[in-house]
Amino acid sequence: MIDRQTKFLIVGLGLMGGSYARGLKRRGYTVYAIDKNPDSIAFALQKGWINGGATMDRTLIQQADVVIFGLYPHAMIQWIQTHQSDLKPGIFITDVSGVKCHIVDAVQALLRPDVEFIASHPMAGKEVSGVQNADDAMFLEANFLITPTERNTPEGIAFAEEFAKILEFHHIAVLSLREHDEMIGFVSQLTHAIAVSLMNCNDNPHLHEYTGDSFRDLTRIARINEVLWAELFFANQDVLVKEIDAFTAELQNLKNKLIEHDEEGLKALFVQSTQRRKRFDK
Amino acid sequence: MIDRQTKFLIVGLGLMGGSYARGLKRRGYTVYAIDKNPDSIAFALQKGWINGGATMDRTLIQQADVVIFGLYPHAMIQWIQTHQSDLKPGIFITDVSGVKCHIVDAVQALLRPDVEFIASHPMAGKEVSGVQNADDAMFLEANFLITPTERNTPEGIAFAEEFAKILEFHHIAVLSLREHDEMIGFVSQLTHAIAVSLMNCNDNPHLHEYTGDSFRDLTRIARINEVLWAELFFANQDVLVKEIDAFTAELQNLKNKLIEHDEEGLKALFVQSTQRRKRFDK
Repeated sequence: MIDRQTKFLIVGLGLMGGSYARGLKRRGYTVYAIDKNPDSIAFALQKGWINGGATMDRTLIQQADVVIFGLYPHAMIQWIQTHQSDLKPGIFITDVSGVKCHIVDAVQALLRPDVEFIASHPMAGKEVSGVQNADDAMFLEANFLITPTERNTPEGIAFAEEFAKILEFHHIAVLSLREHDEMIGFVSQLTHAIAVSLMNCNDNPHLHEYTGDSFRDLTRIARINEVLWAELFFANQDVLVKEIDAFTAELQNLKNKLIEHDEEGLKALFVQSTQRRKRFDK
Repeated sequence: MIDRQTKFLIVGLGLMGGSYARGLKRRGYTVYAIDKNPDSIAFALQKGWINGGATMDRTLIQQADVVIFGLYPHAMIQWIQTHQSDLKPGIFITDVSGVKCHIVDAVQALLRPDVEFIASHPMAGKEVSGVQNADDAMFLEANFLITPTERNTPEGIAFAEEFAKILEFHHIAVLSLREHDEMIGFVSQLTHAIAVSLMNCNDNPHLHEYTGDSFRDLTRIARINEVLWAELFFANQDVLVKEIDAFTAELQNLKNKLIEHDEEGLKALFVQSTQRRKRFDK
């Protein structure tokens, strides 16, 4: 489905789009990019991560065999509304969005029927943004999630799998939109909500003089792109609120063991968390 | 105060005691150890991390110029009660305990007046325990906290500082017992309570197939020694409960921004956490 003639178009050349471009180009594919910031295009061209690019160029859209959106969800929806008439018939489109339900439904509802949007989510990232920080090496240890709907075809799913294999993702999984958003609400959004709250609940400016690795690890992701993450949090609000409540109840349970001086109960919590965490270290 | 003739005695040759032994021996000091487990002594001897050791030997106690406790707090208090009559007059004693208020008061209240207990806390550790995992390299990036009381002398504090400099700790700080326990309740105990609760609040056995780095980072310390940490949590219970409440209130604040769809308020939380976290990356 993807071969040496395939022309990729990356729309939105930031950290993720840039990493895709870099990884595809490194493997000999033809990659073009569109980004509203001319500096991003110039940077990637100079690095040799794209064959060409522009802030806007209809011929780049018209010749693309695969389009990958590295845009924020709402910007992607607007872009498709404006430019979909220029897409080549029969092509596959995918994205990088961290939340799926409402966004995929919106895209598929407005998209031309002769183009297939197969949503995916590369579970990789950094605390910094921009094409300047793009690095396809982060995909080698990462999970790639494909989230088809009833509007997708087996060919669309196969295309997404082939794409992930080319970039050598560590693991590929196929989930429903709902499964994806519930899982992401837990492993990604709840963790960011916790890190941000942990960083914000104490304003001692000397903390860094005393802290150990634990606090540094738990707050690494408190450095957060507020525009992107506000959009992602609101797009998955119901799930995230439910996860915050479940986590808070568990933390209160631990607190109650402390207050009641329930030593065996507290140790049982530690034993359970240790056993569960070991599964991640295999 | 510490010189090439100084004989160190490590009581409790686990992860921390073993790392101290290894670091001191590497730098040419004379190090003996007492541990109830003969395998730990044999392992350290075979590695060359101690000059000698025993499960119990009064002459090792009688000849020691510095005694360092790598025991759990209550075990240390019991050991001192039983064996302090064998200590050489005028020596300094220190420990590794992660909580200070009640423990240091208890030790200083029962200790012979001609021996000085200057409490300290090396802010280093691993998710694994035992002398087999000892590694003094972890001190090079770590903070060393000294927590004197009114019973300590300037010489005692200077001894602890000299000890930390020999092991090349990254930063040395002097705090009161209360300051120490409040800070530890936040940066260490609250973070462990969060990690444990995050790991426990979702029992999906397939999480590791989907997760990204964020969840892995936030739950690394959910692998926890339940005996040690239950003791540390209960020893600092009042502070930890207060910190759990403050953190929970902050997380509820974030949740309320979501429910109220307060986009500017949510972004402001992200901007604040980002600014604060940057101080840790300098």
